Amino acid sequence: MAEPKKIIEPRTLKGFRDFLPETMIPREKMIARVSEVYRRYGYSPIDTPVLEYLEILSGKGSDETDRQLYKFKDHGGREVGMRFDLTVPFARFSAQHAPELVLPFKRYHIAKVWRGENTQAGRYREFSQCDFDVIGTTSVMSDIETALVINDVMQRVDLRTDEPFTRFKIHVNSRKILNGLLEKINLADRAVPVLRALDKLAKIGREKVIAEMAETAGASEEQAGEILDMVSARVGADPYAQLDGLAARLAGSELGLEGVETLRQIFDAARTAGIPEGRFVLDVSIARGLDYYTGTIFETFLDDLPALGSVASGGRYDNLAGLYTKTPLPGIGASLGIDRLFAGLEELGMLEKVSSPVKVLIPYFDRALTQEYIRLASLLRRHGIGAEVYPDAKKLGQQLKYADRKGFSAALILGSGELEKGVVQVKNLKAQTQEDVPYAEGGEELLEYLGRLLGN
Amino acid sequence: MAEPKKIIEPRTLKGFRDFLPETMIPREKMIARVSEVYRRYGYSPIDTPVLEYLEILSGKGSDETDRQLYKFKDHGGREVGMRFDLTVPFARFSAQHAPELVLPFKRYHIAKVWRGENTQAGRYREFSQCDFDVIGTTSVMSDIETALVINDVMQRVDLRTDEPFTRFKIHVNSRKILNGLLEKINLADRAVPVLRALDKLAKIGREKVIAEMAETAGASEEQAGEILDMVSARVGADPYAQLDGLAARLAGSELGLEGVETLRQIFDAARTAGIPEGRFVLDVSIARGLDYYTGTIFETFLDDLPALGSVASGGRYDNLAGLYTKTPLPGIGASLGIDRLFAGLEELGMLEKVSSPVKVLIPYFDRALTQEYIRLASLLRRHGIGAEVYPDAKKLGQQLKYADRKGFSAALILGSGELEKGVVQVKNLKAQTQEDVPYAEGGEELLEYLGRLLGN
Repeated sequence: MAEPKKIIEPRTLKGFRDFLPETMIPREKMIARVSEVYRRYGYSPIDTPVLEYLEILSGKGSDETDRQLYKFKDHGGREVGMRFDLTVPFARFSAQHAPELVLPFKRYHIAKVWRGENTQAGRYREFSQCDFDVIGTTSVMSDIETALVINDVMQRVDLRTDEPFTRFKIHVNSRKILNGLLEKINLADRAVPVLRALDKLAKIGREKVIAEMAETAGASEEQAGEILDMVSARVGADPYAQLDGLAARLAGSELGLEGVETLRQIFDAARTAGIPEGRFVLDVSIARGLDYYTGTIFETFLDDLPALGSVASGGRYDNLAGLYTKTPLPGIGASLGIDRLFAGLEELGMLEKVSSPVKVLIPYFDRALTQEYIRLASLLRRHGIGAEVYPDAKKLGQQLKYADRKGFSAALILGSGELEKGVVQVKNLKAQTQEDVPYAEGGEELLEYLGRLLGN
Repeated sequence: MAEPKKIIEPRTLKGFRDFLPETMIPREKMIARVSEVYRRYGYSPIDTPVLEYLEILSGKGSDETDRQLYKFKDHGGREVGMRFDLTVPFARFSAQHAPELVLPFKRYHIAKVWRGENTQAGRYREFSQCDFDVIGTTSVMSDIETALVINDVMQRVDLRTDEPFTRFKIHVNSRKILNGLLEKINLADRAVPVLRALDKLAKIGREKVIAEMAETAGASEEQAGEILDMVSARVGADPYAQLDGLAARLAGSELGLEGVETLRQIFDAARTAGIPEGRFVLDVSIARGLDYYTGTIFETFLDDLPALGSVASGGRYDNLAGLYTKTPLPGIGASLGIDRLFAGLEELGMLEKVSSPVKVLIPYFDRALTQEYIRLASLLRRHGIGAEVYPDAKKLGQQLKYADRKGFSAALILGSGELEKGVVQVKNLKAQTQEDVPYAEGGEELLEYLGRLLGN
């Protein structure tokens, strides 16, 4: 007797997940919408390998990303690693292809990245990033367009409708504002400890932040007070009044005034582009990556879930690829946090459960009519109406139960009776109604009926 | 003096490649078209992790895929590997999610896979697969629909046009035909050595194949002759005459006749769906994966590049996930070989060089008009016309050179002169002509003009 075959337990690694149709269909829809916005502004898609030489990746993020790197030796004994973000590969890409790239270069990249994170925190070890950047320019025009792209992308995140989503705010700031103030009060070289202390404001309070600034940045109480006064300015007030206030505070600092002027142009452009007042919020308290960003920065929050954190962030940097080339590549970009965004949409009940990419099921219950089902399905598909033909000639009830579980909108019943009468029985599965619809050569009447029923 | 920073050479691993916009834009277009066809037939997208437990992957392909596996120990000491195809992960997925999946289950999966191949052969170590399958059914309807999907996908591969591509043939066969003959001549258990010998027919000729069949399959000269006569039947003849001939040859073998009957229904369906005669070719010589496929099989060849090999292949199998579950999961599917297909399209000069996702450039040459450029760009984008605003206020000539290198179709010149006159100067970059077009509130005239110019 043969040994029974051993079954290998089918399972995924911790921190990794399968996407079933009901999660993948909305993801694909979101990615299509996001790409469409990126493209509309002239950002081109690129892709880079999942594996890179280890020396390209290690030491490029933080100590944490280094620790979390998936790395190994390949068949040729090379030290390789899986990318942990899309920025480092883009830096390598830009340096490597500099001769072929026409600057300014606008790219987007939507792809998976890997980090051996602690999964206790509800984090995934495989997740997606949706970055867009323009490099080779320091123009305010690219700050403006980055702001507009973030707005346009966010307006498209309600997948249930084509109407613009409005329940979000984009917080903007410029690193030049704080740096300008520090320059003015002679603390220009203390930006990092000052920011570290500021970062704790909500947690430890004003007094303790002043004490820390004295200790780590050598700031006097007066200096620390000036910094705190500026960053605590009320969020949400009239941005132009805020900008005037900042300009007065920063008078004399070229850097600071440059930051204010860029922000002013962003607010002007939001008006010009017809974006509702209040969508952009001047928020001097946001800082982002301490070493990387040098100018305008962005964070985006859902009105109904502020605690979720920013779902679209980015900013301006002076030099993307300094580790790989001596050519300075300034630029500005941002990224939609698609996994966090989906968690938020789910929590807000904004995700529809759909597990079929088409709305029409054609049940199959008479084998002699096989070719008739094909004829009907071909007609619909040729006219842009997706349709699934149930593959097995099973009982109609069983097929309708399948249609129900998968979320189809309509079933088209075609038996020999219907064929004789020259009709198709259209079952509206949502309204639980049915109607015989004429079905002749060309099928115009049926197509029109379905167009109305499916809301095309 | 500070040590000058060491530059890390920016480079990709051997067998891996970056996709620049001019290769990525057509790839994305192809993937969008292929997905659209898969969806139109009711196949849903899924995704699985790039990393799997090693035991899921190893020993699941051939000795070669085992050798080529990228594998390592992760941070938790688990043995893991990168997927080498999309079939093994789908088998694992199907077994794992069996309770949630509603059968029959139709999925597609377009994603990258990795194999440490010998790159001498011009092969890549990272490449993409575009699989679609339906599992949980043995119905002829799914054989038919698989054939129709392959046809519809191939009709969409000429990215330069929306007209159907026609220069290809889909070869079909059924493993049941040869197995039926072997059954009839009492060699049913010798299918594998018989197929191995047959595979060498083109290389070593009829006499040597007969000798090998005698040696490895114990076939008499008469038996081997009968096999060779059947598989050498002329390709491209009237398929119905071929089918009648096969039915006569296989009379008495239920299995063989079943195979013939399924193929007959596929040819009928191709007619029903309005597919040109001759598109499907009955080709008894194709075999595909020896152990895996059990019924209908498909291979697809470009008329103008037959030596390229099959660009879309697949077939029916009895049991997808036998290693991971005791539940038998029969199904049928196929895969578009997107990398090979692109190599073919390139060789045939069928790929356009486009490195911008939009057709309109708005040059930026007067800083005082920043908001006017934003107003113009927003108007176009709101009406579905993608536009790039050149970010830097450089000389117009330089910006037009950029437009030329990137392949834009039109540039919209807006200076203070144009603004005063209430026009935009539209430069047709292909025809090298230009015209002042009225540009007022609402912009209807300009939008209409651009619609005509860009062929929307």
